[in-house]
Amino acid sequence: MAIEIKELTPRSENYSQWYNDLVIKADLAENSAVRGCMVIKPYGYAIWEKIQRQLDDMFKATGHVNAYFPLFIPKSFLSREADHVEGFAKECAVVTHYRLKNDPSGKGVVVDPEARLEEELIVRPTSETIIWSTYKNWIQSYRDLPILCNQWANVVRWEMRTRLFLRTAEFLWQEGHTAHETREEAEEETRKMLNVYADFAENYMAVPVMKGTKTASERFAGALDTYCIEALMQDGKALQAGTSHFLGQNFAKAFDVQFLNKEGKRDYVWATSWGVSTRLMGALIMAHSDDNGLVLPPNLAPYQVVIVPIYKNDEQLAQISTKLEPVINELKSLGVSVKYDNSQNKKPGWKFAEYELKGVPVRLAMGGRDLENGTIEIARRDTLTKETVSINNIGATIKELLTLIQENIFQKAFDFRASQTSTVDTYDDFKRKIKDGGFILAHWDGTPETEALIKEETKATIRCIPFDGDKTPGKCMVTNNPSAQRVVFARAY
Amino acid sequence: MAIEIKELTPRSENYSQWYNDLVIKADLAENSAVRGCMVIKPYGYAIWEKIQRQLDDMFKATGHVNAYFPLFIPKSFLSREADHVEGFAKECAVVTHYRLKNDPSGKGVVVDPEARLEEELIVRPTSETIIWSTYKNWIQSYRDLPILCNQWANVVRWEMRTRLFLRTAEFLWQEGHTAHETREEAEEETRKMLNVYADFAENYMAVPVMKGTKTASERFAGALDTYCIEALMQDGKALQAGTSHFLGQNFAKAFDVQFLNKEGKRDYVWATSWGVSTRLMGALIMAHSDDNGLVLPPNLAPYQVVIVPIYKNDEQLAQISTKLEPVINELKSLGVSVKYDNSQNKKPGWKFAEYELKGVPVRLAMGGRDLENGTIEIARRDTLTKETVSINNIGATIKELLTLIQENIFQKAFDFRASQTSTVDTYDDFKRKIKDGGFILAHWDGTPETEALIKEETKATIRCIPFDGDKTPGKCMVTNNPSAQRVVFARAY
Repeated sequence: MAIEIKELTPRSENYSQWYNDLVIKADLAENSAVRGCMVIKPYGYAIWEKIQRQLDDMFKATGHVNAYFPLFIPKSFLSREADHVEGFAKECAVVTHYRLKNDPSGKGVVVDPEARLEEELIVRPTSETIIWSTYKNWIQSYRDLPILCNQWANVVRWEMRTRLFLRTAEFLWQEGHTAHETREEAEEETRKMLNVYADFAENYMAVPVMKGTKTASERFAGALDTYCIEALMQDGKALQAGTSHFLGQNFAKAFDVQFLNKEGKRDYVWATSWGVSTRLMGALIMAHSDDNGLVLPPNLAPYQVVIVPIYKNDEQLAQISTKLEPVINELKSLGVSVKYDNSQNKKPGWKFAEYELKGVPVRLAMGGRDLENGTIEIARRDTLTKETVSINNIGATIKELLTLIQENIFQKAFDFRASQTSTVDTYDDFKRKIKDGGFILAHWDGTPETEALIKEETKATIRCIPFDGDKTPGKCMVTNNPSAQRVVFARAY
Repeated sequence: MAIEIKELTPRSENYSQWYNDLVIKADLAENSAVRGCMVIKPYGYAIWEKIQRQLDDMFKATGHVNAYFPLFIPKSFLSREADHVEGFAKECAVVTHYRLKNDPSGKGVVVDPEARLEEELIVRPTSETIIWSTYKNWIQSYRDLPILCNQWANVVRWEMRTRLFLRTAEFLWQEGHTAHETREEAEEETRKMLNVYADFAENYMAVPVMKGTKTASERFAGALDTYCIEALMQDGKALQAGTSHFLGQNFAKAFDVQFLNKEGKRDYVWATSWGVSTRLMGALIMAHSDDNGLVLPPNLAPYQVVIVPIYKNDEQLAQISTKLEPVINELKSLGVSVKYDNSQNKKPGWKFAEYELKGVPVRLAMGGRDLENGTIEIARRDTLTKETVSINNIGATIKELLTLIQENIFQKAFDFRASQTSTVDTYDDFKRKIKDGGFILAHWDGTPETEALIKEETKATIRCIPFDGDKTPGKCMVTNNPSAQRVVFARAY
């Protein structure tokens, strides 16, 4: 059924329902007939394409190339790296057969029991194993290094509780897999890609992120170090928006990938991997949107400007369209993406609500009086403010406004995060504070036991050991044992 | 092991081996550890990205949007459309379980028998069924139509005999799925997208194609009509490069997708689907390349120009680099993609061979004498000719040359096809001719029986009933029964 009145549950009433309403009503995604798998609808996918294009450009600018590796992984590959199998070989989609046949009863098809695979295939949950089994053939000497490959792909993790974009059984992502001569070079790559992600999050998604290292218990299965960017959502929960892993020589050893180094000696190759996924869509939606709908930063909006004509009759529509034509051309020539919605089967009021819901950064409207006065109405999605301006020089005005909106959306999220970040010294204070959400900077003794206790008692996890900020040592809020520096706690998605 | 001497088997000796050699040695793709699944290597993937970008632009220019649908299809969906299940529900990858567990013996992981899916999931071989089950919820009235969606995705068909790019178990493709109010509109869409494919094949891939309709036995499973573009490879075999299907109301009926039309009556929706895949890579490689390697049309080459400095010492390299800098900048500003290969660990001769193998359309070389004379050597990959020209105005020269090369590659393929296309009136002549390969235009009585007989006796299939060309009726070369027009026969990939 078409939903005619697209009202959202207010955030204050039920944040989680607000998110679900918004994803559905703004036509971003929906659940499919396959449990846990989503359909990404055209408007949602258009945002994902913007994300992809920008990240891809940034990967290429840092020397990376794209490649494509198989969807399937032989089951035995997953067991090669001991930690990796613990983390990834559990909730997976398993292919056991390669043929169907007509049901002897005459109804539909059944799995052909004779077409059983000798070794089961796993639908990739991540591709380290299949990629390192490939790299073995690509690498003989230091001359073959570095390898700087990225892959855009779908992956599957059989999640039990799923939410559109945030946690789905199948999701889209990119995974970079690099191979290096030295530890230092691999570590530098790990940091470099984390910085690319942070740059993207802040300057394109307009989402401020905290950069840091994961604790051992939150590390990627098979990594020596996992760096992450953590963002804060409007409900005070953290969202891990991207990770970059220093894999050491673990996968090279598991797949026996050795090379002849410059000194003529054989050594194992050093590795990194890094990825972001359609989960970023969840972060983008939750960080900025309001009770009226989506708020998109201009840098990722499928169209940055929508123009709605307000007219009494066909003649006036024709006049308005004529007046708008040079405006549209000027905007396009300035690189602004514009949609002119002159569809006649919907009223201006409906269109206004629809584009508000869809988060179009700027709405322009021209009516009869504007036509006479040579003016146009500009409405900002981020502030919901309107003003009427002269149509002269409108291109430059809009261009500046888009920059302003991008900055404003970031600043708002930045200020919100600042207001929701606190420093706490006692576990009692921590327990009180954590209920209100937000980032809490506190001292921790560095042990997985204390980390687990805090998680169990408060549902808060250590989001990261931050790179920046106060490095003063102190005492663990729980055990009073020494702490090297404050770490960031939050409840998280 | 790194292959140092990258010689290819000559085409005349063993065309099939030449193709395999070329795909491997030009670093386009390789077989993976998973039977039938390929790894697309960075250079091959860079060509695929060019193909994707161009097609995507063309789809968007014709009003289409991208979306994403699940990788998995519930088994029962495949049986909904009677013809479809016959064609697609056979050689598929079947997911039966969703969990692995540690092997009780302590070695590796095994499938958890308790995690059996209630209904098996099929890895999509094509997405009509999952998409039409989704469209049911998107379509209520004619106002919701047309839907013009495309998806870029991986699909799996469990092929027994695979060849890199041409036939692989997993391949990458795009699949368009559109929904329309009327039969006429759907038929027009089917033709429009075939024309987009033909335009792309001829103007970007530089591969001339024959457009036409498939016979009933070669039709897509579930379609009322399948249109195709057929290309001729250098060994005289045909390759189907793209298909566009008019699906009638078959899938709408199978998934009960009805809409309220403008007259207020309920009717089933009309459908099309259309796709091209990484198979295009096979066509691109085989249509133009020679015994020295790949020949790429400039419109799809990852880099159109490579520049190789020839120097005696570091000082001379520095001088050459300084001289080349404005050349590189000029080319880039003209939109030409350039690689400057000043790597010092490889000799110019090695580089020349490597870029020839990789099909870079234009190679520029500058040595000591060029430096003195203000000249540069231009080598064309398509003709293997060289000339030395003044460095002045080099940008315009190269720009023109790239256009010329694009045209020349097309013309060469066009002339080859013309030389390999013949008209035949008797079955005896046909049997003689078909051994030499090529397209044969002959009369056929329109029956699947005659078509099957010809296929069995000669291995030739009807590639298409061509849209253009001679429409004069005649008599079937086999049965002497009436024939509406000549059809195109060939042996095919």
